[in-house]
Amino acid sequence: MLSVIAIQDEIAAGRTTPAAEIARSLDRIAELDAGIGAFETLADRDATIATAAAASGPLAGVSVGIKDIFDTADLPTTYGTALYAGYQPRIDAAAVTMIRQAGASIVGKTVTTEFAFLNPSRTKNPLDPAHTPGGSSSGSAAAVAAGMVAAATGTQTGGSVIRPAAYCGVSGYKPSFRLVPTVGAKTFSWSLDTVGFFAASVADVARFAACVTRRTLDIEEMASPLRIGIYRSRIWNEADPEMHHALGRAAEIAANAGAEIVEIEEPDALAVGRDCHSTIQNYEVGLAMADDFLRFGDRMSKILRETIASGRAIPPADYDKARATARRARKAATALFHTVDVLLTPSATGAAPAGLESTGSPIFNKLWTLTGNPCVNVTGFANPAGLPLGVQVVARFGADRAALSAADWLERAIRGA
Amino acid sequence: MLSVIAIQDEIAAGRTTPAAEIARSLDRIAELDAGIGAFETLADRDATIATAAAASGPLAGVSVGIKDIFDTADLPTTYGTALYAGYQPRIDAAAVTMIRQAGASIVGKTVTTEFAFLNPSRTKNPLDPAHTPGGSSSGSAAAVAAGMVAAATGTQTGGSVIRPAAYCGVSGYKPSFRLVPTVGAKTFSWSLDTVGFFAASVADVARFAACVTRRTLDIEEMASPLRIGIYRSRIWNEADPEMHHALGRAAEIAANAGAEIVEIEEPDALAVGRDCHSTIQNYEVGLAMADDFLRFGDRMSKILRETIASGRAIPPADYDKARATARRARKAATALFHTVDVLLTPSATGAAPAGLESTGSPIFNKLWTLTGNPCVNVTGFANPAGLPLGVQVVARFGADRAALSAADWLERAIRGA
Repeated sequence: MLSVIAIQDEIAAGRTTPAAEIARSLDRIAELDAGIGAFETLADRDATIATAAAASGPLAGVSVGIKDIFDTADLPTTYGTALYAGYQPRIDAAAVTMIRQAGASIVGKTVTTEFAFLNPSRTKNPLDPAHTPGGSSSGSAAAVAAGMVAAATGTQTGGSVIRPAAYCGVSGYKPSFRLVPTVGAKTFSWSLDTVGFFAASVADVARFAACVTRRTLDIEEMASPLRIGIYRSRIWNEADPEMHHALGRAAEIAANAGAEIVEIEEPDALAVGRDCHSTIQNYEVGLAMADDFLRFGDRMSKILRETIASGRAIPPADYDKARATARRARKAATALFHTVDVLLTPSATGAAPAGLESTGSPIFNKLWTLTGNPCVNVTGFANPAGLPLGVQVVARFGADRAALSAADWLERAIRGA
Repeated sequence: MLSVIAIQDEIAAGRTTPAAEIARSLDRIAELDAGIGAFETLADRDATIATAAAASGPLAGVSVGIKDIFDTADLPTTYGTALYAGYQPRIDAAAVTMIRQAGASIVGKTVTTEFAFLNPSRTKNPLDPAHTPGGSSSGSAAAVAAGMVAAATGTQTGGSVIRPAAYCGVSGYKPSFRLVPTVGAKTFSWSLDTVGFFAASVADVARFAACVTRRTLDIEEMASPLRIGIYRSRIWNEADPEMHHALGRAAEIAANAGAEIVEIEEPDALAVGRDCHSTIQNYEVGLAMADDFLRFGDRMSKILRETIASGRAIPPADYDKARATARRARKAATALFHTVDVLLTPSATGAAPAGLESTGSPIFNKLWTLTGNPCVNVTGFANPAGLPLGVQVVARFGADRAALSAADWLERAIRGA
């Protein structure tokens, strides 16, 4: 995989140039993407390399894939559907501008599932093309995993950043809610849609996010032993034995490396919170995409059409009740961090499922999307077939640097074990 | 003015038809708008009347102006700037779809200031063309005031619904934050942008909002004497003597009509909250409109260009601090309603200022935009020149029906006094 930090270091040392790095990314895409299908559209090669040659900013030479749910002024934006084929926005989404301003080069738009929902895309998992890369940020996770780009953007409304990161064996970071603006990304659910990033390692994704947001997100060393809460949650039985084993190993490795490990039982408020995610998501998409539904509903996938229709039937009072439940869940989530620094919980139910008919289940992600807590997928485990098993680190709302630093610590511990 | 409720009643009684009502609105626009400049674009007359004739839903026959900051699929959308001249969105904004689904007819797009910020538009105040109608929802407030439409949409980031309503002598309702989705309205500040409505009276705007949102927002009778907190706030001296007198009269009339009146001193948390509004607004517009700024900044007004530039210079830590201040302000605002049902406070510093060089000050509005509380402008007072002096009713977050019901009660008391 391409490392953001390694690229920065090699450029600083004069051993490569931004233009050479962007050419390398485009070469990898030309070589590999026919077999993976991670890209929806590619930027013009010569223009992109020429721009990279003149780029300044900390991310000069860093190749980025933009999930095709974000508007781009120089590339068409399909939102993963033929309904928007050829759609050309006037301006870049806010996150895209932030990435360009940091000096990075956008080499293409990555494949998203239809409107970033559950209907699968054509993208294959680079680690085994018979398996899904996850969704909805399918192309972004696959593009990083295949070493085609150094970083990529995603959005998560249910589990669309952490899950594909886990399935593809890359680092995925879902920041605290609204840390990165969603302006210019197609809205599905305004209370849930969260912009996230993918890169090779936790340190890489932290560096990328720090440069893009101009926030202090770079990894910091642990000043004292990390207090980790193992959070199996009420849906533990939804995870398969491979994932059960991986989470147990992660806890064991962390304990051996000096962390304090405690088991955290899921509070009622969070179990109930998970259950209200769908009400909020579906009610909001019923309004946010109402005009798409009325104009184009007959050409949407069945699962999307039925989800929007079900959302339009939810009474406002049920939605308000779900929002009150979500507020209580956020408070309960904050309270968990009075006794631990971070939580450790599965990133997905297991490794990437076989087949491309489903993008897998977001059941282990949607609670943290609802609460808005920062989450980071940690790589390092695999099942007997060699497919990655991801575990996620969750931190207090706003404690994004703590989430990234703890995830980096754990990732290094796992690699060293 | 055209009354939403009267139109519904007359149609129900068979004394008029939806098509006749929409024709009446379009006739009024043809007659009056040359002197007011409330409309940016008009819908096709024949098609709109034909659609109205076939309309079902509670708002059939209700003519609506849509602020030209909302996307519309059948009318160009300029965001109040030549930079977007001829821009034709693919789909309607969510609020536009909600209005159409309720059976109302969109007769045109109303003039907004440039990107809904402070640079004035060409719209004149229908009550005196030498005075500003306020902004940024200038055209919407003026169109309702002139009797050209029965209702109109607005957005408020600082004071862009309540202030123009006050200056034009119409009812303006800023709902609780995110009660009406902003999806498809050009983003200025995602933490502040709030969709609101204009209509002739409080009962009209409540009826309109109830039909559009499918929520229980219709006026309810007061079950017990209303407890009103007179909220002069720390910026009382920003209001002129005419406004001081109007608020005093409102309190007096309410007391005579049976309300309990108490004086509320502004808590520190709210005074500080008001001061952090600009930091949040400017930081967010610095990201939300970054690409507009980079591409078109040299063709923006000076005040907008400088505001975006200043926002881009705000360090994230200052923004985070302002957000923490805003959270404390929201809690403090909620606490005020432990002892009173609603607050009564100026809608603006006074009547509409002379001249079209400024849209007036949002100083009495921006605190409640920040806290997200529902606000309703109450008409009935005027200065010696006959220009309206608006006072606003503010209720607990989520208590929109209480805000509207109390505002209706007060409006009727003022009319009867």
